[in-house]
Amino acid sequence: MRNRAAIVGGGVIGGGWAARFLLNGWDVAVFDPDPEAARKIGEVLANARRSLPALYDRPLPEEGALSFHADLGAAVAGAAWVQESVPERLELKHRVLGAICAAAPEAVVGSSTSGFKPSELNAAGARAIVAHPFNPVYLLPLVELVGDFEILHRADAIVQSVGMFPLHLHHEIDAHIADRFLEAVWREALWLVHDGIATTELIDEAIRMGFGLRWAQMGLFETYRIAGGEAGMKHFLAQFGPALKWPWTKLMDVPEFTDELVELIAGQSDAQSGHRTIRELERLRDDNLVAMMRALKRTGSGAGGVIAAHEAGLAHVQVDDGALPVTFSGQVPQAWAGADGTMGTAHYLEVAEKASARFLDSLGANAGGGRYAHSESHVATSCDTAAGDRLRVTTQLLDAGDAVLHLFHRVHRGDGEIAATVETRLIHVSGETGEACAPADTVAAALARVSATQPQLACAPRLRQGTGNTA
Amino acid sequence: MRNRAAIVGGGVIGGGWAARFLLNGWDVAVFDPDPEAARKIGEVLANARRSLPALYDRPLPEEGALSFHADLGAAVAGAAWVQESVPERLELKHRVLGAICAAAPEAVVGSSTSGFKPSELNAAGARAIVAHPFNPVYLLPLVELVGDFEILHRADAIVQSVGMFPLHLHHEIDAHIADRFLEAVWREALWLVHDGIATTELIDEAIRMGFGLRWAQMGLFETYRIAGGEAGMKHFLAQFGPALKWPWTKLMDVPEFTDELVELIAGQSDAQSGHRTIRELERLRDDNLVAMMRALKRTGSGAGGVIAAHEAGLAHVQVDDGALPVTFSGQVPQAWAGADGTMGTAHYLEVAEKASARFLDSLGANAGGGRYAHSESHVATSCDTAAGDRLRVTTQLLDAGDAVLHLFHRVHRGDGEIAATVETRLIHVSGETGEACAPADTVAAALARVSATQPQLACAPRLRQGTGNTA
Repeated sequence: MRNRAAIVGGGVIGGGWAARFLLNGWDVAVFDPDPEAARKIGEVLANARRSLPALYDRPLPEEGALSFHADLGAAVAGAAWVQESVPERLELKHRVLGAICAAAPEAVVGSSTSGFKPSELNAAGARAIVAHPFNPVYLLPLVELVGDFEILHRADAIVQSVGMFPLHLHHEIDAHIADRFLEAVWREALWLVHDGIATTELIDEAIRMGFGLRWAQMGLFETYRIAGGEAGMKHFLAQFGPALKWPWTKLMDVPEFTDELVELIAGQSDAQSGHRTIRELERLRDDNLVAMMRALKRTGSGAGGVIAAHEAGLAHVQVDDGALPVTFSGQVPQAWAGADGTMGTAHYLEVAEKASARFLDSLGANAGGGRYAHSESHVATSCDTAAGDRLRVTTQLLDAGDAVLHLFHRVHRGDGEIAATVETRLIHVSGETGEACAPADTVAAALARVSATQPQLACAPRLRQGTGNTA
Repeated sequence: MRNRAAIVGGGVIGGGWAARFLLNGWDVAVFDPDPEAARKIGEVLANARRSLPALYDRPLPEEGALSFHADLGAAVAGAAWVQESVPERLELKHRVLGAICAAAPEAVVGSSTSGFKPSELNAAGARAIVAHPFNPVYLLPLVELVGDFEILHRADAIVQSVGMFPLHLHHEIDAHIADRFLEAVWREALWLVHDGIATTELIDEAIRMGFGLRWAQMGLFETYRIAGGEAGMKHFLAQFGPALKWPWTKLMDVPEFTDELVELIAGQSDAQSGHRTIRELERLRDDNLVAMMRALKRTGSGAGGVIAAHEAGLAHVQVDDGALPVTFSGQVPQAWAGADGTMGTAHYLEVAEKASARFLDSLGANAGGGRYAHSESHVATSCDTAAGDRLRVTTQLLDAGDAVLHLFHRVHRGDGEIAATVETRLIHVSGETGEACAPADTVAAALARVSATQPQLACAPRLRQGTGNTA
């Protein structure tokens, strides 16, 4: 029998919880008097289905069954987990949590509350815990858990089984932990807009172009530990202690900056990150930043857009007449290296695809209505490539038939050695019909010109004639 | 002649500026009385060389020349940009900026100050602007520019030419914009540690497992615009207005939450993001989150570690006896689709590499001292794959010689169609010598067992016999 979760209160947060459980193989029963609940949860679920499974390289369990119930008791019956996500009014929470606990005495009952403490939630007799998630709930791992220790222990295993990260708070406090930071930033942002210093857009850029990237992978203190450098966390703290008295924010209630506080923070930072040197932390941070910024390059968001624009202005490599054209030149990111430190074969094909695109671009082949699609490739490696190596690809035209184009890429390392060759057959397809067709006359003429003038370097093509898959 | 920048004050920030300019083809002259300056800048430069070029798929310009000078005048002579990064003491800044401006009257003079306003920096007669970067300066694009409009205009073009994102502040204010948020969060964090509510590690997890990921790609207001959903930004603001009076942070100086402030924020948000629907913003956010979290999966940092751990606990696909083993199953992320919406060929090879690894793992082939390396692959596509498609790979053993293993992967789409085949030849190499050698007897026996019992599906191998590259 499958696990069953009940969602009380739909909307964006309840829908996100529903999606988390469903896509991890749980049956989910929903109680929400809103007549639009099914539509709203359906929309969240559609978003979740296109993104959550794409995080993993293994399949998630088979999706559970989603049901809607007009009666709260029917919804929560048999549920191992009941999640309450109703509006943030304490008397409403008391009523709903009381009814849930009466109808599902065995279940873990979590509240999505942003601000109420367990003692407040349970003041009318419920036994709920705070299980505070972050939007989009189906993607972000964080869930803050506060409340009874025994229930938290059970809750832990369940939220981990649906891919979340449980953060235990040992002391209850208004707004838990993360929302206190959000609230502080929110209040400062309201001042900046209110006073006409900055617009919403300027504030968003100030965040995502800088410290947002740092925080996505290390958070606050580990980032500052690195900034402190070899001199250490205490040095860093001493440097920024005085700023607490300066008007660097309008939010001026600050703790006394005593030696005891410095010792406390430096000691906790050692316990957290002391097993790594500053140099190791710097390189981990940089590897993460490069990988995340490359990831953002495709959508052009934030730092990714800056890189794309800068790259577009960088000159392509110039080559002498009489040599094959250089169609790719770049440095191997750390993220391309496998566990053994060498680059996976797929990345040779990745740079060869970029090289094909650059070669075609230089001939104006993408100006017409059709496009060239890679139909077949042969990748042969001859020596290893590691992160940090510079790769340089040259492209030789082997053959250009009606719709067929046959290229031979040599992938050179920085030392000149050929690390791999990639032989590729591309087919020109019509933009309208998707069928194979000859390219525009100008493209054919350009190909003939290349064929006549390029150096005829010897190579041993491995792709047989004829196209089409032979599975 | 190459452009020339001067760096006054080395250390982590000055070194970061030096690296930015050098790796973008500028000559850089450094003035820093610290006898350790050359070593410190060398270390920053080593970090920058391994990461900044890896952001781009084109080469950066040839690196400029780095020189150190005992005399400030010699360092700044002929520089188009002089960057001051000395300690945060106003009388020191006055002295240094004054000397720079006297020696380099034509240069743009930027100060890395975290907190001082241009009017403070220039009170003793200098004409510097604030050019406030973020660590690591060689990777993070943000630079806050404040000061004289005409100088800012020149500064803009220069920082963009070295890949940075200039953010103009139209009003000077203590700590500019980004550091005001950092300071607010820092103050709240100090309270939480001081009061024993949270440790530094718990605070870092609260940030990087949740809102840090959101902020890395969209910032604060666009994120909240999405949270407001179809009801819009005003609805969202109305909902969280009351929280300003609640003790959700110890930082309690809050602006009056008037209708005018709501109109101002909602109007700015419309101007910033109104060209996209909420659904479009949601999907952009999700695509970015998936791509960044997949990027973090390799290093195991933050959310990436959560995904890796969850994935390790997911069951591999079970298959019936008599069928080929399923060696990969996953959903195509949005980031794998090209501009035309279809998946690039390299990703077929990427999933085939994962499939090879899984196949070898199931035979215990990675337990011994050696490893199998991909030497040659043939990829043939037969139909298109789009983002969101589920891929399922089966693996057939064609041949296992002494050190050679010959596999045939079929990549199926969710509808069962074969999207591509990947034929791969792997060579077993010794962990000690790196030379080709036979695998352990247990592995050879396992391969023989697979060969005898697997279904003998017909396929047409395309790789010729014999290994080695033929470039």
